[in-house]
Amino acid sequence: MSRYSLGIDYGTSSCRSVLVDLENGDEVAEAVYLYQSGEAGIIVSATDANVARQDPRDYVEGLRLTVSGALSAAATAIEGFLPSEVVSVGFATTGSTPLPVDESGEPLAFNPEFTDRPAAYAWLWKDHTAHAEARAITEAARLLRPEMIDACGGTYSAEWFWAKIWHCLATDPEVFAAAASWVELCDFVAGVITGTSRPDVLKRSVTAAGHKALYSDRWGGLPDTEFLAGLAPELAELRGRLYDRAYPTTDIAGYVTPAWAELTGLEVGIPVAVGHFDAHAAGVAGGVRTGTFVKVMGTSTCDVTVIDETESGVPPIIPGMCGMVSDSMVPGKLSIEAGQSAVGDIFNWFADKLAGRSDISAALSELGILAEALQPGEHGLLALDWFNGNRSVLVDQRLSGTIIGMTLHTEQHHVLKALVEATAFGARRIIQSIEDAGAPLDRIVAAGGLPSHAPWMIQTYADILGREVLTARTTQGSALGAAIVSAVAAGEFASIEAAQDVLVHFSDLEYRPDPAKVEVYDRLYEEFVSVHDAFAANGPLGQVMKTLLDVRDSTLAATA
Amino acid sequence: MSRYSLGIDYGTSSCRSVLVDLENGDEVAEAVYLYQSGEAGIIVSATDANVARQDPRDYVEGLRLTVSGALSAAATAIEGFLPSEVVSVGFATTGSTPLPVDESGEPLAFNPEFTDRPAAYAWLWKDHTAHAEARAITEAARLLRPEMIDACGGTYSAEWFWAKIWHCLATDPEVFAAAASWVELCDFVAGVITGTSRPDVLKRSVTAAGHKALYSDRWGGLPDTEFLAGLAPELAELRGRLYDRAYPTTDIAGYVTPAWAELTGLEVGIPVAVGHFDAHAAGVAGGVRTGTFVKVMGTSTCDVTVIDETESGVPPIIPGMCGMVSDSMVPGKLSIEAGQSAVGDIFNWFADKLAGRSDISAALSELGILAEALQPGEHGLLALDWFNGNRSVLVDQRLSGTIIGMTLHTEQHHVLKALVEATAFGARRIIQSIEDAGAPLDRIVAAGGLPSHAPWMIQTYADILGREVLTARTTQGSALGAAIVSAVAAGEFASIEAAQDVLVHFSDLEYRPDPAKVEVYDRLYEEFVSVHDAFAANGPLGQVMKTLLDVRDSTLAATA
Repeated sequence: MSRYSLGIDYGTSSCRSVLVDLENGDEVAEAVYLYQSGEAGIIVSATDANVARQDPRDYVEGLRLTVSGALSAAATAIEGFLPSEVVSVGFATTGSTPLPVDESGEPLAFNPEFTDRPAAYAWLWKDHTAHAEARAITEAARLLRPEMIDACGGTYSAEWFWAKIWHCLATDPEVFAAAASWVELCDFVAGVITGTSRPDVLKRSVTAAGHKALYSDRWGGLPDTEFLAGLAPELAELRGRLYDRAYPTTDIAGYVTPAWAELTGLEVGIPVAVGHFDAHAAGVAGGVRTGTFVKVMGTSTCDVTVIDETESGVPPIIPGMCGMVSDSMVPGKLSIEAGQSAVGDIFNWFADKLAGRSDISAALSELGILAEALQPGEHGLLALDWFNGNRSVLVDQRLSGTIIGMTLHTEQHHVLKALVEATAFGARRIIQSIEDAGAPLDRIVAAGGLPSHAPWMIQTYADILGREVLTARTTQGSALGAAIVSAVAAGEFASIEAAQDVLVHFSDLEYRPDPAKVEVYDRLYEEFVSVHDAFAANGPLGQVMKTLLDVRDSTLAATA
Repeated sequence: MSRYSLGIDYGTSSCRSVLVDLENGDEVAEAVYLYQSGEAGIIVSATDANVARQDPRDYVEGLRLTVSGALSAAATAIEGFLPSEVVSVGFATTGSTPLPVDESGEPLAFNPEFTDRPAAYAWLWKDHTAHAEARAITEAARLLRPEMIDACGGTYSAEWFWAKIWHCLATDPEVFAAAASWVELCDFVAGVITGTSRPDVLKRSVTAAGHKALYSDRWGGLPDTEFLAGLAPELAELRGRLYDRAYPTTDIAGYVTPAWAELTGLEVGIPVAVGHFDAHAAGVAGGVRTGTFVKVMGTSTCDVTVIDETESGVPPIIPGMCGMVSDSMVPGKLSIEAGQSAVGDIFNWFADKLAGRSDISAALSELGILAEALQPGEHGLLALDWFNGNRSVLVDQRLSGTIIGMTLHTEQHHVLKALVEATAFGARRIIQSIEDAGAPLDRIVAAGGLPSHAPWMIQTYADILGREVLTARTTQGSALGAAIVSAVAAGEFASIEAAQDVLVHFSDLEYRPDPAKVEVYDRLYEEFVSVHDAFAANGPLGQVMKTLLDVRDSTLAATA
């Protein structure tokens, strides 16, 4: 009899269930559901580009259809497949994607009274409406609770839990008042399938809590009421209706209910793990462990590793990390998250907006062939990958993309190569920051969707990092990671590491640095660092990009 | 009876004769000849991109066909036109474009023995084969004759007279040995039509001599033999076969010979002025005088003005000027030349190479409409216009183009606007350098081909310079300038200024600065200067562009 774990990944525009064979990590069946609401699953606003909401009906419908779909696919693909062979279920979702719920745990969006109120829907990770609240939280925390803000890189983001909820209070107080609690998407879906939706029984994920809700055992869970009251009394009052404790993702959230067994074809009582964030789950599927640095590369890049907890329990200072959470990826370890705000997005932007190509993917493929043939430095260019700000190591959204070294002979493939190199230099700078803090990295893994699209990019990374780069075999890292972690939660493996040893595989493609290229790139990296540091806030050109953005913003405001 | 002056302009790919009515400056007839040799008139090399030569046959044939063509056109266009109404002839040509000649003044290229020897042809201004010689001349002059190199901006160029001749000696000593002398194109054509080709009688233009051959009365004409011998004994020996004295362009070079009267239809004995360089002639046609700054804008931009001579005769130090010559544009005044190595070329590069448009002019027109509508700073970008190095004020070819401030929302017309602004910021920096040296400028004129193509660009210049910008009415400034100067030489006007008062006209289009835009651009100019100075050789990022170019060059050399 085989054993399978079901990983369910909620992305930005779709969700997907993937069935993983616990003998070998093979992904044996899957089903995808495209969200039906809004534009590609996102409810937007004609008047405010910052709005990005989702309809929780898509989550519930996607759960039913992809789980049943994956099981049907398995029945077709695998001779003698039995639903009882599915021994665990896990979720990995976008985040912070909080939604307001009533006392039963039902989304307010399901209440006819709030159907036409965007605030009652799920606030998708990329919703940026709460930037003013984020700034205020950052300032208050820096002044009053520096330890809290240190853990998330020194700046609280408009994309995160408290900023969004506070913005709901400020802009739709009725929805705020009607919310019995707020739950993260990863907890919501786990609650649905296990019948534990009621906010007072729902187990909250430490990954979601620690990253985005400023949760830590060090200060007794969520931020204290005094701090929250300083932001808004209503937030302090809400704290008691949230949660006191968050759980590692290797804990069991609950068990599949008879109703959901009926809806999906799963057996009743299958254990379901506490929900995960997609990037962290992908980190697990990329083999994250002490000394292993996993880059989950897509439109942006999320970098993860884990280090040992310090004796004091106070995380070490590693400049530029955007989150450090105990137990988030590997129980007993401190997870470290860094990131690059745009990676694949930059290449797509270039092909689409600058090169003006209608078929982006054909353009990148065609230009990629030419770019691959260029020797390091042959194009004479150096770029900064700050087209969407710099998440790590500068933690500064008010920075922008730059290309230096253009001549009248510069061609499109030169620029594409320089942009790829810029993201690799940025990656090297992040690795340098972690290693400088005393956490050596002996294995670099490129995961996510990007590596399989452009092997030459990964070779460029190897040459710029001066290290071998492994690529994850899976292209569904988040789903695979959710399957792995839930298998650990269900007791199928003794630890994350033990599960990874069986279930994580790397591609056969080898990306080893070419010493001659490394030498040139070492020289160019020095120049990258010079320019990087010059345009950083405290550098000699630190005011330039900020002035450009200030002038742009005030011009746009004046003409709006 | 009317009076006309004939201006003949030798450009890079064609020459053109323009007949100018001396009553009012109207251009009443013209004829163009496209050079027939090489690619668009340029003899290139498959193995060396630096080679750019021309066949003097094109010069002679173009002279015959455009002069006769312009006279025919005048006979058609003007009732009762008589060739005897043409009272002066003047030349404006590219330069430094020297060619080796025999004792009779015949180009060596006409000698069957040298037909297949590129060194025997004219060395077009943009021939860059002599970069090593230029560097050696710069170094020697800095050490031994700093006053000579100060007059040409501190760096001798590969495009200039001595470097090219030395390179001929180094690479084709037979041609060098066969050359009785070397003449600049502007002197060559004046010699042909006046029968004064013989090197020992040919009058050499001070514009050509002073700018490119290091000629000045202050050190007795051409560089002394001791200095030249230090470069190569053969150059010192050549000096005696060049010239001792150079003449202002308001002098008469000679008179149209019977043979050329027969060939062209001109009357015998019409006075022909000493030849001019095209940019300086265009400066005259743009109204250059003390306080007037004329930008001759095309693929690159040549900026000219004149100032009073100092009492000592030693020119003032104005950082970043690329040439200062007595009597070159206005007798008795010191001409000042600055420039931007690429202007129109940058916009063409952008449309062609970066935006990938097949129809460059349609693309610039289409994107220009969008760019014009942008408010200052709205695109959030700042660029450096160094795509072909920086001629003024840094006099540094090893600098490169840069664009700062890009985001995932940056579009093509944003970049085009930023590139136009970059050239205008560069222009402002040049004006600042001249005014800081104590030479106030009260009139700015945009001349050359570019202004008529894109009025919005000139408005952007007005907003960035914070001054009104006049545009020359003529689009054939070099030919008009040659006609004006030769009319002065022929005694038709008492002075250049008197001729300009009658013959120079500005467009009715008004480009006045918008105070609200000036305010924003003043702020952005501060940032431009910060970035400009940071990447300058002695700035905190001074090594960056040079390293990029070094790495590029050594990579290309290694793979060649």
